[in-house]
Amino acid sequence: MISNKVQAVVLAAGKSTRFKTGRTKLLEKICGQEMILYSTRLLEALDIPTIMVVGYQKDAVIEQIQQRHQEFITFVVQEQQRGTGHAVQCAMQHLNLDPNRDLILIMNGDMPLATPDIISKLYEQHKSTGAELTFVTSHCEDTHSGYGRVITTERGLKIVEAKDFTGDASEHCWINAGIYLVNRRFLQEQITAIEKSEKTEEFYLTALIEIACNKGLTVSTITAPFDIVRGINNFQELWAAEQVKRAELIRYWMEHGVHFSVAHNVHIDLDVAIGSGSYIGCGVHLLGRTKIGKNCKINEFSSLENVTLGDYTEILSHSMVSSSTLGSNVMVGPYAHIRDNSHIGDGAYIGNFVEVTRSTIGAGTKAKHLAYLGDAEIGTAVNIGAGTVTCNYNGNTKNKTYIGDRAFIGSNNTLVAPVTIAKNAYTAAGSVITENVPEHALAIARARQVNKDNYATQLRTPAQPQIANITFVAAQKNKLSTDHL
Amino acid sequence: MISNKVQAVVLAAGKSTRFKTGRTKLLEKICGQEMILYSTRLLEALDIPTIMVVGYQKDAVIEQIQQRHQEFITFVVQEQQRGTGHAVQCAMQHLNLDPNRDLILIMNGDMPLATPDIISKLYEQHKSTGAELTFVTSHCEDTHSGYGRVITTERGLKIVEAKDFTGDASEHCWINAGIYLVNRRFLQEQITAIEKSEKTEEFYLTALIEIACNKGLTVSTITAPFDIVRGINNFQELWAAEQVKRAELIRYWMEHGVHFSVAHNVHIDLDVAIGSGSYIGCGVHLLGRTKIGKNCKINEFSSLENVTLGDYTEILSHSMVSSSTLGSNVMVGPYAHIRDNSHIGDGAYIGNFVEVTRSTIGAGTKAKHLAYLGDAEIGTAVNIGAGTVTCNYNGNTKNKTYIGDRAFIGSNNTLVAPVTIAKNAYTAAGSVITENVPEHALAIARARQVNKDNYATQLRTPAQPQIANITFVAAQKNKLSTDHL
Amino acid sequence: MISNKVQAVVLAAGKSTRFKTGRTKLLEKICGQEMILYSTRLLEALDIPTIMVVGYQKDAVIEQIQQRHQEFITFVVQEQQRGTGHAVQCAMQHLNLDPNRDLILIMNGDMPLATPDIISKLYEQHKSTGAELTFVTSHCEDTHSGYGRVITTERGLKIVEAKDFTGDASEHCWINAGIYLVNRRFLQEQITAIEKSEKTEEFYLTALIEIACNKGLTVSTITAPFDIVRGINNFQELWAAEQVKRAELIRYWMEHGVHFSVAHNVHIDLDVAIGSGSYIGCGVHLLGRTKIGKNCKINEFSSLENVTLGDYTEILSHSMVSSSTLGSNVMVGPYAHIRDNSHIGDGAYIGNFVEVTRSTIGAGTKAKHLAYLGDAEIGTAVNIGAGTVTCNYNGNTKNKTYIGDRAFIGSNNTLVAPVTIAKNAYTAAGSVITENVPEHALAIARARQVNKDNYATQLRTPAQPQIANITFVAAQKNKLSTDHL
Repeated sequence: MISNKVQAVVLAAGKSTRFKTGRTKLLEKICGQEMILYSTRLLEALDIPTIMVVGYQKDAVIEQIQQRHQEFITFVVQEQQRGTGHAVQCAMQHLNLDPNRDLILIMNGDMPLATPDIISKLYEQHKSTGAELTFVTSHCEDTHSGYGRVITTERGLKIVEAKDFTGDASEHCWINAGIYLVNRRFLQEQITAIEKSEKTEEFYLTALIEIACNKGLTVSTITAPFDIVRGINNFQELWAAEQVKRAELIRYWMEHGVHFSVAHNVHIDLDVAIGSGSYIGCGVHLLGRTKIGKNCKINEFSSLENVTLGDYTEILSHSMVSSSTLGSNVMVGPYAHIRDNSHIGDGAYIGNFVEVTRSTIGAGTKAKHLAYLGDAEIGTAVNIGAGTVTCNYNGNTKNKTYIGDRAFIGSNNTLVAPVTIAKNAYTAAGSVITENVPEHALAIARARQVNKDNYATQLRTPAQPQIANITFVAAQKNKLSTDHL
Repeated sequence: MISNKVQAVVLAAGKSTRFKTGRTKLLEKICGQEMILYSTRLLEALDIPTIMVVGYQKDAVIEQIQQRHQEFITFVVQEQQRGTGHAVQCAMQHLNLDPNRDLILIMNGDMPLATPDIISKLYEQHKSTGAELTFVTSHCEDTHSGYGRVITTERGLKIVEAKDFTGDASEHCWINAGIYLVNRRFLQEQITAIEKSEKTEEFYLTALIEIACNKGLTVSTITAPFDIVRGINNFQELWAAEQVKRAELIRYWMEHGVHFSVAHNVHIDLDVAIGSGSYIGCGVHLLGRTKIGKNCKINEFSSLENVTLGDYTEILSHSMVSSSTLGSNVMVGPYAHIRDNSHIGDGAYIGNFVEVTRSTIGAGTKAKHLAYLGDAEIGTAVNIGAGTVTCNYNGNTKNKTYIGDRAFIGSNNTLVAPVTIAKNAYTAAGSVITENVPEHALAIARARQVNKDNYATQLRTPAQPQIANITFVAAQKNKLSTDHL
Repeated sequence: MISNKVQAVVLAAGKSTRFKTGRTKLLEKICGQEMILYSTRLLEALDIPTIMVVGYQKDAVIEQIQQRHQEFITFVVQEQQRGTGHAVQCAMQHLNLDPNRDLILIMNGDMPLATPDIISKLYEQHKSTGAELTFVTSHCEDTHSGYGRVITTERGLKIVEAKDFTGDASEHCWINAGIYLVNRRFLQEQITAIEKSEKTEEFYLTALIEIACNKGLTVSTITAPFDIVRGINNFQELWAAEQVKRAELIRYWMEHGVHFSVAHNVHIDLDVAIGSGSYIGCGVHLLGRTKIGKNCKINEFSSLENVTLGDYTEILSHSMVSSSTLGSNVMVGPYAHIRDNSHIGDGAYIGNFVEVTRSTIGAGTKAKHLAYLGDAEIGTAVNIGAGTVTCNYNGNTKNKTYIGDRAFIGSNNTLVAPVTIAKNAYTAAGSVITENVPEHALAIARARQVNKDNYATQLRTPAQPQIANITFVAAQKNKLSTDHL
């Protein structure tokens, strides 16, 4: 059993220079998950105790990993980046000396697409060939790729690192993928035998291969498709790897009864789940831990992040929902924005240009047009008129708005929180509601209308002589002086 | 003439299990049209009378087809799905016995990309070779594809169905596409000779090929590019077929003078038409029976469904228009939403965050910002201020708003329907209009302003001692008690 | 030195018939720049004086070029489109007769992807072979491509124009790209020797190649990748060329530390610049002369055109910003629309469904929900409530709104410009502000609230007998008659 025999060393100390962001690449995300977590989740799934060699921005890397994993990783710091051989040397003293666990799996921390299968295959090959060291190779002719090249020598194999390689990459098309299985004893004896590269002053772990061959020890290899072992050294490679991962996720959901209108511009994260019979439109972003029920429809250009949806719920186009829960048969959008721990009941309708934040909306309640509902608790079967705003912030504090079941809020209402509109109450269109409204009451808070005959003509004709002109100026100045009212 | 000699049987009874939606795949859409209608429209165009064998969810399938076609299809029910041979057997008794129409074209109902050309080619080959049976083959090495494989035997050809095939698909790379032309007499005589598969207990229509060869009768084939004959058995294949169809439509419109900013993420339905000189931006969706005039511009991420546009009309980005008619030189968006049988006159401007539903907007009228216009009839050259809302719903009924030509509606107006604002009238900003406004009148319905000196200081400093604090609490409680006014 | 020896003739007179727009293709844009400017900027960078032969829609072409370039181009009109040979003949009399500048570079005006390298390589080849004429060839098997084919004859080479070519394009797979370097003396002597094509009645420039070969003069060639020399004759070719250019730009910015979430549906113009550490989401459009600072985030489906952004500024999804300047640490969106020379200060927040036009927003000011701010000058640390509208247009003129530092504008305010709200002032929610508000004052302009007990019940039940019904009708008619207030 691989889990009883192997311990792992993950190399995660490097500088990410080719990303040119001043940040470690290991925390760049692929399908919503930090790159380094692909390695740690793989090793956790295989139940292999792991030493991680960290260095560059180590605190951020360690913090991220510890958020996800409790125990199975030991961190070792490589203070200076002196090469992969030196990194492994830093890890040596932390190896478990249990004689049963005498195989050391060494892998780079930037290989997010590696699979359990390739590790198992490596292990099987190592056992069956009785090798001292087994490693993964892949076919890649791209000279700019930065991989060490596997070269056949008289005595076996050696790796020429990309920095030192001057040959023809199409001739030497097998690369060292960066995954090794080594006998612990051999590693302990030979890790210090690695000599510094004259060119780069680094100690290359790959020198072990030539050392073993020179000693007549067995070195074996397995091959892997390039997509599985691709390393990530710049943003182009990150993008390519994410494409591969995303395609894999979409294929999976297609096979589980999900209809994607296009498969090439939908963004879907690793931990998303989608019920069968659901439809995902063009450009949709499904992020974080979003869970979509059965027979839902998510239309074009909408984004869902950390959202739970019931069944038969429809998100119309150009909507954004985050950190919220929606029931079944809900209609949202287009252009709706729901966020910050909001809860939308079954059959509710949140329409266009409506923002809902930190609010609970009851079943069957409708807010279909141009509204801002913040810090509101709204009952069932409520109607929220177009243009309604909850004034939840007075410059000092955030306050709540309570609206009871079956209340009818007229259009263009201003609800000044804290305020309660009780069940079955009704507010007149255009009202500013500052006081609580009892059950079944009608609240009105607006001015009466006055029609001034022919006044429009005067407003429209500022260029007219004398009187009209004066009147216009007055109107401009006083904005229709209150005398007129 | 193919139309005089041939009758068709379309196989449309299968269960769509690999879609995993619990719905028949035949009603899944490709470029806006249900999959099964591609077959029926093809046969209608060729003027071939058709029997369709239905089974799984037959009512839904029949209803959809009858919406589109009047007469030329006869439906036959295959109660149990016992294979393609059994399906054809169900159809036998409905064949037209006219001796002139003695060729039976049999095809699967899930081949949306089949062309009239391939049917004609099949017919020509059948006639020129004097075959009993001619069928279409194509090249496909994918083992998972589910196609029967064409195998050469001592006596000619036979088909091994995918479920029974155990060989090497790259060696047996010719597949049976699922389109056959058979002499009626041979079909009538031999359809009952097909034996049940031991493995699947189904009767395979393809057994006829081996039967014919064994009898020394002529069987001939034609080959077709895989894209033309691809069947659709799961969502990945649906997506691939739609990609092919969409690319074909876009190529067509490019050749007719339409500028697509990208060709790979625009969605365009089968029955859309676009005038030359028009521009279609990234991610645009042109759906249903949308007709776009000449020299229009549809910017990125906008969707048009069942919309008619005049010439030189511009839809700015992130807009949605459905089931509406827009004139020429109209400006819409960004973020405009027009729907439900609305009509927008020439030169009108519907701007950002504006929703128009069930409304008529006159020529040259502008509603440029944040408005909801529902059930409104608005004349020409009207100005609708920002934030204006028609209150078309009072909780019981929907009511209409009428606005005459050249009226000026101030910002943040609340127009309580039913209400009429006559020609040339003017409403003051912030008004709640509840009564009709005569021509040339100015309507005002808002409170007068009062400035309370230094009151802001008190509101801002709730932590200040004694008086300020008390005042603040009072203000909070009464929301600026009306005594202050 | 190429710049001292060469003068250029650009052929830009053709009719663009295959575009079918009635407009010259030379002004169609690729990555934001008109096609013809790719040629002129290339020649300007190489410092080569240029004659451009114009014809179809020549005024528009000349105007566009003159907007960009001052001097180095001489325009020559070819009145009738009688072929490339005739076009060059039109240019002959304008050639500089400086004996040092005795090489004539001739190229088509529709080759936007041509590089300085290919011109240098052409020059080197011409010099080293001592040729009379050197031209660029490329490999292209597509018969529909419209390129002349390079044919080997007994005496050397000749070009058969696409219109005249009847052979097998895969056999004659080398095309004439349309870039020539010719000795001036040879050109002057032989340009008139070109004979009219019998088929098209055009004079082909390419006849010079056969003429030279027939005279035993040296003709040499260089080869170029097809992507570099592709000409643009219809919208499909335009799209393909833009894809190539866009991929090149994105690759460049990826290498400079910019994270693109996808590389295949981002639109980026030639003159855009992006700081390292910035993130560009799916479908983002970066247009015109947009400059993005370091560590910015531009989320999915947002568009920026001619915008300058400071560092650490975030544009949330579905936002549009144009012709404006934003500081550092600004938050914008989602669904924000900023335009027309607006300026947003450091740390400001322009939120969802907010439009800002011709306005200045101070540092730290927030307008987070549903607002229209037009012609406004707003100080620092101001809070703009949800639903606030500046009434900047009264039907005649546009007027300004001034809001001082730290002012608090309540929700659903209507600010009737011209109006000034001084520093530290406060306006009550739902107010219509028509008069200036002094510093520290609270402005209130709204009606007091009245609750009518049980009136809601009556409004809800129009079907109830007698009294309720009558009351409802009255309410409908008078919209809650003012007696009630």
